[in-house]
Amino acid sequence: MSEDFKSGNDLQNLSDEENFGVSTDLIHAVEDALEGSRDSEVEDLVEGLHEADTADLLETLGREERYRLMEVMGAGFDPEILPYLEETVRDEIVEWLGPDGIAKLVPSLDSDDAVELMQDLNEDLRIHILAALPLAYRRVIEESLSYPEDSAGRLMQREVVAVPSVWTIGETIDYMRVSENLPDDFYDIFVVDPRHHPVGFVPASRVMRSRRHVRLDEVMDADMRIIPLELDQEDVAHMFRQYGLVSAPVVEKSGRLVGVITVDDVVDVIDEEAGDDLMKMGGVSEPDLYDDVANTTIARFTWLGVNLLTAVLASVVISLFDATIEKVVALAVLMPIVASMGGNAGTQTLTVAVRSLAMKDLSEANAARFIGKEFIIGVINGVLFALLTGGVAWLWFGDWALALVIGAAMIINMVIAGLCGTLIPLGLERYEIDPAVASSVFLTTVTDVIGFFAFLGLAAMFLL
Amino acid sequence: MSEDFKSGNDLQNLSDEENFGVSTDLIHAVEDALEGSRDSEVEDLVEGLHEADTADLLETLGREERYRLMEVMGAGFDPEILPYLEETVRDEIVEWLGPDGIAKLVPSLDSDDAVELMQDLNEDLRIHILAALPLAYRRVIEESLSYPEDSAGRLMQREVVAVPSVWTIGETIDYMRVSENLPDDFYDIFVVDPRHHPVGFVPASRVMRSRRHVRLDEVMDADMRIIPLELDQEDVAHMFRQYGLVSAPVVEKSGRLVGVITVDDVVDVIDEEAGDDLMKMGGVSEPDLYDDVANTTIARFTWLGVNLLTAVLASVVISLFDATIEKVVALAVLMPIVASMGGNAGTQTLTVAVRSLAMKDLSEANAARFIGKEFIIGVINGVLFALLTGGVAWLWFGDWALALVIGAAMIINMVIAGLCGTLIPLGLERYEIDPAVASSVFLTTVTDVIGFFAFLGLAAMFLL
Repeated sequence: MSEDFKSGNDLQNLSDEENFGVSTDLIHAVEDALEGSRDSEVEDLVEGLHEADTADLLETLGREERYRLMEVMGAGFDPEILPYLEETVRDEIVEWLGPDGIAKLVPSLDSDDAVELMQDLNEDLRIHILAALPLAYRRVIEESLSYPEDSAGRLMQREVVAVPSVWTIGETIDYMRVSENLPDDFYDIFVVDPRHHPVGFVPASRVMRSRRHVRLDEVMDADMRIIPLELDQEDVAHMFRQYGLVSAPVVEKSGRLVGVITVDDVVDVIDEEAGDDLMKMGGVSEPDLYDDVANTTIARFTWLGVNLLTAVLASVVISLFDATIEKVVALAVLMPIVASMGGNAGTQTLTVAVRSLAMKDLSEANAARFIGKEFIIGVINGVLFALLTGGVAWLWFGDWALALVIGAAMIINMVIAGLCGTLIPLGLERYEIDPAVASSVFLTTVTDVIGFFAFLGLAAMFLL
Repeated sequence: MSEDFKSGNDLQNLSDEENFGVSTDLIHAVEDALEGSRDSEVEDLVEGLHEADTADLLETLGREERYRLMEVMGAGFDPEILPYLEETVRDEIVEWLGPDGIAKLVPSLDSDDAVELMQDLNEDLRIHILAALPLAYRRVIEESLSYPEDSAGRLMQREVVAVPSVWTIGETIDYMRVSENLPDDFYDIFVVDPRHHPVGFVPASRVMRSRRHVRLDEVMDADMRIIPLELDQEDVAHMFRQYGLVSAPVVEKSGRLVGVITVDDVVDVIDEEAGDDLMKMGGVSEPDLYDDVANTTIARFTWLGVNLLTAVLASVVISLFDATIEKVVALAVLMPIVASMGGNAGTQTLTVAVRSLAMKDLSEANAARFIGKEFIIGVINGVLFALLTGGVAWLWFGDWALALVIGAAMIINMVIAGLCGTLIPLGLERYEIDPAVASSVFLTTVTDVIGFFAFLGLAAMFLL
């Protein structure tokens, strides 16, 4: 019985998140033991952890402790840990292991894990490791690396079970029992024609349940989705999501079956994709939790620099009206409200647009309807918040004209915000620029500039 | 051979996204045919579409066209389309079908799809539908509905293949062949002890490849993750992600096996979860692409209302210094820069924190290190942007004192932004408030208030 199996009594507490993953207590215990150089205690604590949990432990530790833990694990370091590590930490550990250390570990990895590891290494290191690999294994990895990054070819497993459609269930089972060259476990058996093109699939469970004399093409499912080798991994993820797929055959241009993608490979892509959009919208190029201070600072500096330019642009707009502000200082007090509300209303629309584009829910077919809807919402919310802010301005400064001016500026800015929140991402998407990255800078520039210009401009016209 | 199978020549264009999903051309063709009341043309266009694609088509159409299409599909409406629909559109169609129409369709759905559909219906409609179901099926659905929303119990399939550990491969296969009561296809067979507690699993492919006389407990994998019935679906998703699971047994409190969750069920949860965080950070309660104008406006109004309050608070801070601004109008020109840079720097940190908390990468174990790192980044970026904005202020207004004041305010605000970007989400998480929802409002309030206060306050002290 596995150590992971919980008896009935333990189950009471299983909903507590400490019951899976590495607990804070374990991490502190490891840190303590590392600090006290009690190596055998560290070994005891780490032994028996799932590779994914050991990876989490390594990530959570500070850099020095991480190196100390690596030293303690030493030759016993399980290469299966590597695929679970975040890129930054993996790079550190790869460097720590050195070219020869890595080359020794790679052959024990599954080919898709090895490819994932190798594709991030620099050219020199990659060549060094490839040279150290057994020839057949090396060929497989080199071929995978020859497919475009983020393509179905990189994502697929090359080990695929393919049998001719003329076989019976019995022949198939007998072949499975003697064949050495199959993946350990698999879900679907692919049925191929004489040209090795996939024509259907049979779930392993169905093979098991059918009578030996039944022919494969009698029980196979011909309704399947076929993935071309070059398809981008985000499109692969979309196909799996759209059709609820569990596994799908991958074919090269000629139509020959060359591999299989299973849904568990796709989970990582979906996860990454959604996280990436969130990061980009927040002005972070990628998750940088494990990056060091220097790299993080540099990565974030660019975005802040762009933002400084747009902020200065907004300031230039304000400076056009400095004489007006000097006369009516209430304008300086109220002007951030107009800009801020426009920015927030626009961000709401933008967020829906970016997510809907990523999910392929928003396309040219319904863009016009979406834009129209956001325009109307902009008008309605514009009017409502014009009344509210106008009311605030009137209560505060007792000035009807000022209240009218801020109300009018609010309507203008919120309508423009709604339109820009839709048109900017749709425009960027059309020119194949990732809308998650660039949209929000464009948007806030527009809402700041329009917000200040409309409010101060109307004030200059009607209040002086 | 399936219509989805592409011959070699077609594959050339398969990487084009038009080759799966509903194309814009198809949508326009359907719209045209609906408008011209050419019903048989509509039927031809829709026939043979995958249910997921028909669902997309229904979503993309405007409401009137949607009802028209439903009329055309009429009695031929495939209930399998329902689980693929977004909630808003599904509600509309459920209403259109009416209680009796729905009650007729539900029994042909898989139990988990039926549960997903029923859980969103109102109480009256649910009771009406339940009453119309066959008793056994009704029991299954009622039991599922009795588990907490968003729990493993709702997510699991109740059809699970469980066999005693003393059985041989041969006995297992024979049982599979005669048993009527099994799911159509499955990946893993669960091995249970006499109390029906899971003790291991055997992938279907391994059963098929093993000799008949081998005992199950010789080939089974005892290292598995067991999911309690009450576990929140986000934790379920985390387990699948963490350990790369394909399927996992679900047990009730006593430890009895009651169901199975497979990775394809989890894909939807992961997707939803990531999208939800993005939406919440953008100030949208949920994806509202298909909501009508009224509902969308109401949902967004709340967030904008909260934002208005914080904007007014910032204005109050500015008004404290109106005498200062009256004397040095350059302050009004420059003050949005300080607030905006703080807001953006804070949002970067906040985004990383929210995502890392959701991925369980950030926890108490490494919180101190994260806060420390963000503090240092705040100091470094604060100093860098103090020099830049100070330079801009000096070039623009030729005033050294003003340049020093804006530089000092920038450092203060960016350091505070970095700290708040970490402390606010960590604090909310500790009190079990979703950090994605509330963090950004708190954050921008702080960066606006501190930004204006530091800049104008220092100016009042040193420039007058």
